Amino acid sequence: MKNYAAGIDIGGTNTKIGIVSDDGRVLERTILQTREYSTPSIYKKRVRSELVSMITSMDIEICGIGIGAPNANIYSGCIEFAPNLPWKGMVDLKEGLDDLAPVKVTNDANAAALGEKLFGAASGFSDFIVVTLGTGVGGGIFCDSKLLYGKFGFAGEIGHITAVPGGRQCNCGRKGCVEKYCSAGGIVTTALELFSEHRNKSKLDKYDKNTLTTRIIYEAALEGDKTALETFDTTASYLASFFNDLLNIFSSEAIIISGGVAQSGEILLKPLEKYFRQELIEFYREKDIKLLLSALPQQDSAIIGAASLVF
Amino acid sequence: MKNYAAGIDIGGTNTKIGIVSDDGRVLERTILQTREYSTPSIYKKRVRSELVSMITSMDIEICGIGIGAPNANIYSGCIEFAPNLPWKGMVDLKEGLDDLAPVKVTNDANAAALGEKLFGAASGFSDFIVVTLGTGVGGGIFCDSKLLYGKFGFAGEIGHITAVPGGRQCNCGRKGCVEKYCSAGGIVTTALELFSEHRNKSKLDKYDKNTLTTRIIYEAALEGDKTALETFDTTASYLASFFNDLLNIFSSEAIIISGGVAQSGEILLKPLEKYFRQELIEFYREKDIKLLLSALPQQDSAIIGAASLVF
Repeated sequence: MKNYAAGIDIGGTNTKIGIVSDDGRVLERTILQTREYSTPSIYKKRVRSELVSMITSMDIEICGIGIGAPNANIYSGCIEFAPNLPWKGMVDLKEGLDDLAPVKVTNDANAAALGEKLFGAASGFSDFIVVTLGTGVGGGIFCDSKLLYGKFGFAGEIGHITAVPGGRQCNCGRKGCVEKYCSAGGIVTTALELFSEHRNKSKLDKYDKNTLTTRIIYEAALEGDKTALETFDTTASYLASFFNDLLNIFSSEAIIISGGVAQSGEILLKPLEKYFRQELIEFYREKDIKLLLSALPQQDSAIIGAASLVF
Repeated sequence: MKNYAAGIDIGGTNTKIGIVSDDGRVLERTILQTREYSTPSIYKKRVRSELVSMITSMDIEICGIGIGAPNANIYSGCIEFAPNLPWKGMVDLKEGLDDLAPVKVTNDANAAALGEKLFGAASGFSDFIVVTLGTGVGGGIFCDSKLLYGKFGFAGEIGHITAVPGGRQCNCGRKGCVEKYCSAGGIVTTALELFSEHRNKSKLDKYDKNTLTTRIIYEAALEGDKTALETFDTTASYLASFFNDLLNIFSSEAIIISGGVAQSGEILLKPLEKYFRQELIEFYREKDIKLLLSALPQQDSAIIGAASLVF
């Protein structure tokens, strides 16, 4: 008999809710607009009613509810001051849901790592890092076969380590964080900087910081636009240094890229592979350290990751 | 009845051998000059005979032999290509000793972390990082109550993450590694750079890179020498950024400084505290994150750390 779990991914824009079977397939899904709900309590009531209607119409029982959300803490079960969500302060994610099934909560990057481990690119690895490159940069870290949480539950916040000392101002208060260079927004900033440096003819010249997206840069790069290609090349060199730092810290066998930026595929991966191998210290040059893209279906990966918390 | 273990710390200059009781006291100790032994096999014979003579004269049994050494791997029991030791290639540390008692091997920073956990500054912590600042920079990391090893046994090699992109050339092949700024040699380089920048009158002006040491800089700083004080201030700012990176990665409750540079005490710790707190992200500002110096007796800490491997 199959086991089922609910997976809920709470993002700044969308909330994805799904029912996942224990072979990692999403059987039902729905999307809410997170910002439409002015308070956590109205929001949670809606999430609950969506969930109940799915379970009822499928006529199943679920073994648990896994929730991935930015700055969500496995120990408290709460979102703790997430800058990209509409609600301020602590949001208790268990209350109002845990009468349906046991609820487990963690941040989205940890959920992504669990998803890759159970059903994706990390199934054979004991030591790997899932790096999520999207609106922000996050990390889910398996070391010695265990997902790291740390004392306060926020291990893996690798978006807030320094890429460029004294560099771009980050929302966290520090300067030069990886997130300001390797997130979707960071890549856009790099493109705009390169464009203003070069003043060359580029497909990107009609865009500004409000209209340019990584998707547009990606498409321009595919068509051979020099500034777009250089943007990915520069991003790859930041990531290569960042990934080598992580490798030296964790002695991992693989780094897996997840999140929206991973959609850039080979355009990013090719220069990244080159720079990453160049920077490997001798000890790791003869090991087979893998750089991989997420093997979960992009649209469902967050739901699968969240559900993996309870499997 | 007391338990006893042997602790062996293999360094580029000295090898320290001691017998440690299970309350963390070193009862007997001896020191060998590592470089006097041209091959690992002659070296190991000498270590063995020192050990046997200690055990015999004390009339005890030991429960194990713990060895801390640079680039020593807990999985293989070998030193793997340590640049600061006189022997090339793999050195099997178990063979020739493990008939005396079970032998456990790890790198010196991991041994230091175990020592602090069992007998030193970390006894109350589940999540902490011991940063060794000496000839090199290393790390022993407890996360979720476990010492991290990683797939290849070299987790915690935090000396080789980037402090300054494109900065000073490191022996590992990368540029700008933390080790080139925060090790004893890195601090000397910083002092010489500051001195040549300022061309001011300094107690350090009679030294060059072959004669200047952190001890001399420390003593000059105690006497109020500006270049010496600025050297510690600059080092503290590198460390503050580095420690904040580590905190964000591991969500630790404490960072403990060990190794020769820790002897600088308040001269380093005071500016470090200031910069470290300034850079804390909001979430950690209200937590009581501790910056501590090693609480093990300096002279014996490496032996105690190594013995802690088998307790």
